Amino acid sequence: MASGQCEKVMTLIRERISARALLPGEKLPSVRSLAATTGISKSTVVEAYDRLAASGLIEPRRGAGFYVGSQPVPHSLKTTARPVERAVDPLWMSRQALEPRPGMLSPGCGWLPESWMPQEIIARALRNVARSGGAQLTDYSEPKGFAPLRQLIARRLATREINVGAEEIMLADSASAALDLVLRFLTEPGDTILVDDPCYFNFLAGLRANRLRVIAVPFGPGGPDVEAFAHLAETERPRLYLTNAGLHNPTGWKLSPVTAHKVLKLAERHDLLIIEDDIFGDLEGEPAPRYAAMDGLERVIVIGSFSKTLSAAFRTGYVAMRPDWVEDFTDFRIASRFGGNQMAEALVHAVLSDSAYRRHLDGLRNRLMASGDAVARELEGLGFELLNPALGGFFLWCRLPGGQDAAALSKVALDNGLVLAPGNVFSHSGNAAGLMRFNVAQSDNGQVFRLLRQTLSEAREM
Amino acid sequence: MASGQCEKVMTLIRERISARALLPGEKLPSVRSLAATTGISKSTVVEAYDRLAASGLIEPRRGAGFYVGSQPVPHSLKTTARPVERAVDPLWMSRQALEPRPGMLSPGCGWLPESWMPQEIIARALRNVARSGGAQLTDYSEPKGFAPLRQLIARRLATREINVGAEEIMLADSASAALDLVLRFLTEPGDTILVDDPCYFNFLAGLRANRLRVIAVPFGPGGPDVEAFAHLAETERPRLYLTNAGLHNPTGWKLSPVTAHKVLKLAERHDLLIIEDDIFGDLEGEPAPRYAAMDGLERVIVIGSFSKTLSAAFRTGYVAMRPDWVEDFTDFRIASRFGGNQMAEALVHAVLSDSAYRRHLDGLRNRLMASGDAVARELEGLGFELLNPALGGFFLWCRLPGGQDAAALSKVALDNGLVLAPGNVFSHSGNAAGLMRFNVAQSDNGQVFRLLRQTLSEAREM
Repeated sequence: MASGQCEKVMTLIRERISARALLPGEKLPSVRSLAATTGISKSTVVEAYDRLAASGLIEPRRGAGFYVGSQPVPHSLKTTARPVERAVDPLWMSRQALEPRPGMLSPGCGWLPESWMPQEIIARALRNVARSGGAQLTDYSEPKGFAPLRQLIARRLATREINVGAEEIMLADSASAALDLVLRFLTEPGDTILVDDPCYFNFLAGLRANRLRVIAVPFGPGGPDVEAFAHLAETERPRLYLTNAGLHNPTGWKLSPVTAHKVLKLAERHDLLIIEDDIFGDLEGEPAPRYAAMDGLERVIVIGSFSKTLSAAFRTGYVAMRPDWVEDFTDFRIASRFGGNQMAEALVHAVLSDSAYRRHLDGLRNRLMASGDAVARELEGLGFELLNPALGGFFLWCRLPGGQDAAALSKVALDNGLVLAPGNVFSHSGNAAGLMRFNVAQSDNGQVFRLLRQTLSEAREM
Repeated sequence: MASGQCEKVMTLIRERISARALLPGEKLPSVRSLAATTGISKSTVVEAYDRLAASGLIEPRRGAGFYVGSQPVPHSLKTTARPVERAVDPLWMSRQALEPRPGMLSPGCGWLPESWMPQEIIARALRNVARSGGAQLTDYSEPKGFAPLRQLIARRLATREINVGAEEIMLADSASAALDLVLRFLTEPGDTILVDDPCYFNFLAGLRANRLRVIAVPFGPGGPDVEAFAHLAETERPRLYLTNAGLHNPTGWKLSPVTAHKVLKLAERHDLLIIEDDIFGDLEGEPAPRYAAMDGLERVIVIGSFSKTLSAAFRTGYVAMRPDWVEDFTDFRIASRFGGNQMAEALVHAVLSDSAYRRHLDGLRNRLMASGDAVARELEGLGFELLNPALGGFFLWCRLPGGQDAAALSKVALDNGLVLAPGNVFSHSGNAAGLMRFNVAQSDNGQVFRLLRQTLSEAREM
């Protein structure tokens, strides 16, 4: 077992290699210079280098020090290089939520229980597709995706005052895939991207995967902090601002029209693009303003999908953007995935066109409101402070009782069968350690609160 | 209408901006210096700059020359900046093949007619999924994708002597999406990638989308030219070699065991990774050797999908790679697309598990052989020279009669209702101008040959 100091050196070198600050074949810092920089003894640095050499990661060359091994090292997104313990980071959150573990309850996850989803409407659509057969069962869809679905999305966007033709809408494999394509289309590695603090945790992982530099603007009840936004736009020169449209994730807060106007003026002054992710749009009661509606898609790109209210099992996302970018973007889409999934696109179209789907959405909104109230009362009973009371949507954003640390609580919770969503997985600045997101649909269940009470008390005693 | 010289300058500047050789806000070359470099008169350069300024792409600044506009310019994959005429390049091919145009015949496309696909088996799987309901209708699949499908893929790879556990297999949205993820995981922008000459045309577009530098090795009846491979590996230091497993696209040729061994030794000597795309594997009669089987996944990554023989309408691809890369790769997969499409994955699993699917494959191979023979006779009757007689699979790779140019022929063919696949869309070096790929299933039809005969004769007269 290596000593703590030795491990520290090993971690440092592993991280540099994994981040490509040290490239394959490159010389490592000399033992003397690393010892001087880190204040760790030369003998410990030698031990660490020897251990790394034994693992094959670095290679000693006679009389010439150590070199990064020629073994190719893939691009790692981990925020820690310790193999044994994974940091509570955005990818930890994804893994906890997606990993199948029978019996676990997931008040921290970002989707609805399957019984809340429109199972019957989907089954009907499946039977119809099976019966009609033909190209929908077997063929790629056209370069921009299944035209009837693009037309339907254009009509739905028009209800949010976003006027865009079906030819300016391109389908993608999901909203995540849509974001990923747009980022690759509009940015260069190393560009600076502005996100909300807090924001959807997988935005942070996706930006890192695209080698983008992230900065964050505090997000409050009416939208981003305009003064901080102005300052960051001026000093950090971000290329684009990535945010949610409508209900914000994780806070559930909505953009105010005044803030929307001010942000758009700043975007214009500083030549900033805005990506608006409209994934929860169907759950709003009174719709919030959309940047895309005010701006007319001049510098706003809309992405979205139906994974949260229709199905995550045959996902279809979309992108709407200004007409003069559409052809180049479509080329990009083809280059990275060729044709679209005609059956998935046709199924989404069939469900959205089914009159029962509108009733499903109405029922869902009411059910979320009722669960939101019930879960809020339970959380307040446990001493949580609610930061976004009764706004609708999936999420409650709360402060933990007694100054407890959300990441520590989440680790204890796993042993008790609960997947929680600690605040800092959503926060680039790491200033949400005392906050937590709850999914009202997954939490409205006595067992969740029994286990949560137990977890709070165990964590307090640690 | 701008003169030819003026257009030349405009194209040059557009290309530089689109390739980001000139960045937003950057100063353009002075009129004097551009005139000197290009040999075009100063007055023509001034006219070109004025026209570009009128379009908003560049901006004049009083007394200080011209600057690239602050309008953000997205990443374009076009090989020509001429807006009016699209080059016959890989993306042209994709667009022609995917664009829905009723009545067109597509002997050049890369997939089977819908009537050749397993429609009944798919319809049965759809009805079963609709009946069973539950998570398969609505939920994300686990981080690596639906476990029963990963287990089944592991068993199928074992029949090709590729021994890999289900935990080393990750599902993706398609083989194209799998390739895209692997490239982003294993390369840096600017890395050099070796492909076959010719190769699948969308590889070339996908590599360009990842900002990778492409070099190509001549590919012949037994695989890549080993001497050329050795020379390129030595002098160009490619990071990886991307190729097809089994039946090669577009040539239909197969790797020989001797070449496979030599290429693997070169890969080891020059520290090169190999990506083997096993998309046509199910169509082989006698299976060709696999790099992954010989190498044991040490430096080979396998990707594949079932889009060609099962369905392209609910695509599911996969990646198999060495165990120590799996967790970092899975993080990458989550960062770019979050969970998987459980329904699509479950449907693919259901079809592959249906005993009728094996019979479908047997029938397909026989039918392809028969059509291959018939189409070969027709093509020879028109004066084509077949370079890959009777190897099975989708494709015949042929030399055009009378030294005709395949790109020119393909343009004439479009007016006659035929989508052809000219050789140079597959060739990075551009040395396949006299060659063409035919899809035997799409070509086995008298009307195709009547139109092809007419097209050949019209093109000869032009």
